[in-house]
Amino acid sequence: MQDWTVYLSGEIHTDWRGQIEEQSRALGLPVRFTAPVTDHPASDDCGASILGHEDTKFWYDHKGAKLNAIRTRSLLAAADIVVVRFGDKYKQWNAAFDAGYASALGKSLIVLHDPSLTHPLKEVDAAALAVAEKPEQVVQILKYVINGELDRT
Amino acid sequence: MQDWTVYLSGEIHTDWRGQIEEQSRALGLPVRFTAPVTDHPASDDCGASILGHEDTKFWYDHKGAKLNAIRTRSLLAAADIVVVRFGDKYKQWNAAFDAGYASALGKSLIVLHDPSLTHPLKEVDAAALAVAEKPEQVVQILKYVINGELDRT
Amino acid sequence: MQDWTVYLSGEIHTDWRGQIEEQSRALGLPVRFTAPVTDHPASDDCGASILGHEDTKFWYDHKGAKLNAIRTRSLLAAADIVVVRFGDKYKQWNAAFDAGYASALGKSLIVLHDPSLTHPLKEVDAAALAVAEKPEQVVQILKYVINGELDRT
Amino acid sequence: MQDWTVYLSGEIHTDWRGQIEEQSRALGLPVRFTAPVTDHPASDDCGASILGHEDTKFWYDHKGAKLNAIRTRSLLAAADIVVVRFGDKYKQWNAAFDAGYASALGKSLIVLHDPSLTHPLKEVDAAALAVAEKPEQVVQILKYVINGELDRT
Amino acid sequence: MQDWTVYLSGEIHTDWRGQIEEQSRALGLPVRFTAPVTDHPASDDCGASILGHEDTKFWYDHKGAKLNAIRTRSLLAAADIVVVRFGDKYKQWNAAFDAGYASALGKSLIVLHDPSLTHPLKEVDAAALAVAEKPEQVVQILKYVINGELDRT
Amino acid sequence: MQDWTVYLSGEIHTDWRGQIEEQSRALGLPVRFTAPVTDHPASDDCGASILGHEDTKFWYDHKGAKLNAIRTRSLLAAADIVVVRFGDKYKQWNAAFDAGYASALGKSLIVLHDPSLTHPLKEVDAAALAVAEKPEQVVQILKYVINGELDRT
Amino acid sequence: MQDWTVYLSGEIHTDWRGQIEEQSRALGLPVRFTAPVTDHPASDDCGASILGHEDTKFWYDHKGAKLNAIRTRSLLAAADIVVVRFGDKYKQWNAAFDAGYASALGKSLIVLHDPSLTHPLKEVDAAALAVAEKPEQVVQILKYVINGELDRT
Amino acid sequence: MQDWTVYLSGEIHTDWRGQIEEQSRALGLPVRFTAPVTDHPASDDCGASILGHEDTKFWYDHKGAKLNAIRTRSLLAAADIVVVRFGDKYKQWNAAFDAGYASALGKSLIVLHDPSLTHPLKEVDAAALAVAEKPEQVVQILKYVINGELDRT
Repeated sequence: MQDWTVYLSGEIHTDWRGQIEEQSRALGLPVRFTAPVTDHPASDDCGASILGHEDTKFWYDHKGAKLNAIRTRSLLAAADIVVVRFGDKYKQWNAAFDAGYASALGKSLIVLHDPSLTHPLKEVDAAALAVAEKPEQVVQILKYVINGELDRT
Repeated sequence: MQDWTVYLSGEIHTDWRGQIEEQSRALGLPVRFTAPVTDHPASDDCGASILGHEDTKFWYDHKGAKLNAIRTRSLLAAADIVVVRFGDKYKQWNAAFDAGYASALGKSLIVLHDPSLTHPLKEVDAAALAVAEKPEQVVQILKYVINGELDRT
Repeated sequence: MQDWTVYLSGEIHTDWRGQIEEQSRALGLPVRFTAPVTDHPASDDCGASILGHEDTKFWYDHKGAKLNAIRTRSLLAAADIVVVRFGDKYKQWNAAFDAGYASALGKSLIVLHDPSLTHPLKEVDAAALAVAEKPEQVVQILKYVINGELDRT
Repeated sequence: MQDWTVYLSGEIHTDWRGQIEEQSRALGLPVRFTAPVTDHPASDDCGASILGHEDTKFWYDHKGAKLNAIRTRSLLAAADIVVVRFGDKYKQWNAAFDAGYASALGKSLIVLHDPSLTHPLKEVDAAALAVAEKPEQVVQILKYVINGELDRT
Repeated sequence: MQDWTVYLSGEIHTDWRGQIEEQSRALGLPVRFTAPVTDHPASDDCGASILGHEDTKFWYDHKGAKLNAIRTRSLLAAADIVVVRFGDKYKQWNAAFDAGYASALGKSLIVLHDPSLTHPLKEVDAAALAVAEKPEQVVQILKYVINGELDRT
Repeated sequence: MQDWTVYLSGEIHTDWRGQIEEQSRALGLPVRFTAPVTDHPASDDCGASILGHEDTKFWYDHKGAKLNAIRTRSLLAAADIVVVRFGDKYKQWNAAFDAGYASALGKSLIVLHDPSLTHPLKEVDAAALAVAEKPEQVVQILKYVINGELDRT
Repeated sequence: MQDWTVYLSGEIHTDWRGQIEEQSRALGLPVRFTAPVTDHPASDDCGASILGHEDTKFWYDHKGAKLNAIRTRSLLAAADIVVVRFGDKYKQWNAAFDAGYASALGKSLIVLHDPSLTHPLKEVDAAALAVAEKPEQVVQILKYVINGELDRT
Repeated sequence: MQDWTVYLSGEIHTDWRGQIEEQSRALGLPVRFTAPVTDHPASDDCGASILGHEDTKFWYDHKGAKLNAIRTRSLLAAADIVVVRFGDKYKQWNAAFDAGYASALGKSLIVLHDPSLTHPLKEVDAAALAVAEKPEQVVQILKYVINGELDRT
């Protein structure tokens, strides 16, 4: 059986990645999960910490964002499926950026968000092959897509 | 020897996939076969079952068709050879869609159908590198293409 | 204002192309419409007529289908939008093939068909950015997409 | 001199597009500007209005978002430069989606926003070739990039 | 009506290009024909003549062949249709090279040769959408493909 | 150490492939060699034998050439390096076709032929990164390119 | 006759661009020439001047280099032929960068430099279809490539 | 965990590659490093040594540079990350060429050089996702990008 690679993009403040990974492992799904660096302070400070401090906020952020892009672009390009999760806090423009980037690369896109976000996310959802509300739905999708098995509910 | 990946698209109501896979295995061909979900009710109901019921037939079908597309697009893109089988029942527009999709991706296309369908399939056949009538011919093609061995008949 | 190129694929037995072209012209839309050869006997016989007769039906059809592909592939590749119309007669596998081909090229796909065909066309519709029932809806889409003008109904 | 095509994506509630277009015209820059439909109600209602009402908010939005995508994807693909403007209101995930989409297509990206948004936009800015604060800076960039003329300030 | 670009590759010792161009012009076909440099001595000597003499035959030829490639690659890439003509003299490996190059670019390929060459050209013919014997057949193909008009014979 | 894939195209009447493979194995080079079917009668007859006899020579050849293309196109696309050998007999247009095809795919091309063929092969040689006369030179190139080891001569 | 687009990259301290443009115009060649901004101070200062001063040399340069990239990348991508000129002063790494960039895009590359630079430019020259020493040779190449006319010397 | 491939291009006269490889190994990073042939005399002489002597310096260099390109192009294309190191000696145009080539392929680019080279390298740095001064910074980047671990300094 082929291994699938699924990139989990977006919100980093709840445990949705852990839930998807754990439930997929419990089902024995042949999936390799990838993700951005989810340690928020590290992802903010990596550029200045490794390459030298910047006094200006813009360049401080810039250096870090570019290091993160090395990881993100490589893993997005290597993914079969990209799941993008939007939470209820923060601007999350990087999540939407990833969704657009993945869409232009022709990746299969799954968007995960609360129904309350339906209107502002309508352009992102329109590019997706599935819009889910809960992590367990993503796991059910992976189980169906990969193994062809559907748990009737 | 390299492994080949062969996607078996189209008709899901006869055992042509099983025959090709079994005969290929008997010959020891280094082929990994992939296919859409061939459980018809599951492929119809997957969207509404996993992501929530839809009262409208159009959206019920739409949600399911998109989940199936996650599987189909990934496996088509990963295939070396795409075999598309047309049977004598149903519209089978998804099979012709897959043939067009595979053709635009530059995949080697083999079409499998009864000679009675020659005229309506002429555009699909014109895009193919082989047009076969029986599953065993597909197996002979794979044997020849992969191993260079021809069983004279 | 930019000119748009819209390829009108599929059914050739009703006047849907004429309606779309005439209504678009009446609205002054900057659209260049392209289409396959819609003279059915010509599209069947072109290969054998130009390149020499074939006794076998398969090769007779094959030669013609390939000549038609010269036109079809070039015009599909040059289109911004591809409209595919399915009628109630014939197999129309070439229409579904075109839809798959256009989809793999990343073209914006509009599918035009009667609601009675929703279920067998669900995979094709799932790849589309719009599913319309009547030619005038396609014209309204073009008017909105190109000029940004919406006629409220 | 060659004509350049510049797509103006993002915020639709202030007159930044008008300013850029007017100032560019005053300078005689050979630029063709394109943009999404900026009539907010029309862009929300286009799908249901043209293709039929939907009772469910999700599908109502979905139909409209997909029609808008026909315009957006074509114009983004045809652009030499994509300018994405973020304002201080709304989620603007479609703007970030466009930025990601344009970036994956290899388009030259200019982001336009207030410095107060620097931190949440750092991933988007990191993909850009210029980050401006005011429309007149975008015009100066176009003047320099296209004509090679720099107004020293 | 759109203009088509047709590249005429291969044999340079008979007047087949002139015939195709003249007959197409007589029919008013909207075609722009392109071709390699057909002045044989110029195409042999261009490199050494412009860039400096070479004593070694290999480098003398090499410099010329690369200059010709500047023209050939650009015109092949810009063509909608590539016609490759094989005559009865010389090795004509450059013609077969062009056919392979055009085929990998996804161009519509028409091969023009005497039936006596069918066997050695079978791989080239297999990549073509039409195999013609006479220049006037190529003109008939262009007339049909572009205008949709078939002269019954 | 990475494995390299080298496709050996062209002449099938001398043992050049065997020499390259044997010498490479003796040197322990991490290379996987691929090739077309080199059993001449099988490559001529495969189409008619598997898919049904054809009375017309053209279609007999056509069916076979297309089956061979399934193998050839897949292996060419998977190769890092393509070696094309021209001998002193036959038209060998398929070898030149492969060279053009590989070149358009951006493959590293090595051409192997006697100096007496320099002039007619000048366009093919001009697209190559190396032109060798003997199989052992190809092996030395592979050793150098892969291991960085140069045997001074 | 088709118009050709030729990008003139590299050295900005001698009048080689002017010579090529003037001589081409005198010959009536249908060429549109493009180039980077050749006003050295402007190309150094554009970023800080338009987008705001930077105290750090690195970011001062960075902002300018990125603005220049907007022009460079667009014009390189639109060119049929890229000429890169290396002079005897400065590092000229941007010229070599452009050559690599153009080469990866599959553009026809002409390198223009004094023979004294042959050894350090050998990798760049190896990617080129012509290596010239004088501007008038570039003009002769354009005349030959575009018009097929060779002035014997 | 996925393996990453990192190509180390550029300067061959100091031990920066060895340092990066050793430190990465010490950290257990799952990286496969690739590089050009760093034996300078071998890389100069390989062409003439294997394929035959050339009296002219240009062709002597040319043959060698093309053999090196077989290795370089394949390894660059297979890399996830390309590190390009500029030292204080020699022209190093091949390093800048590689940077441009990698950039056009969309590779993540890291440039490694002394701050004294900032100005002449500004166009190269502008295309990079990171600009480092020391090999240990490259190792820290790899550790962060691959494992998500940041050593605060």
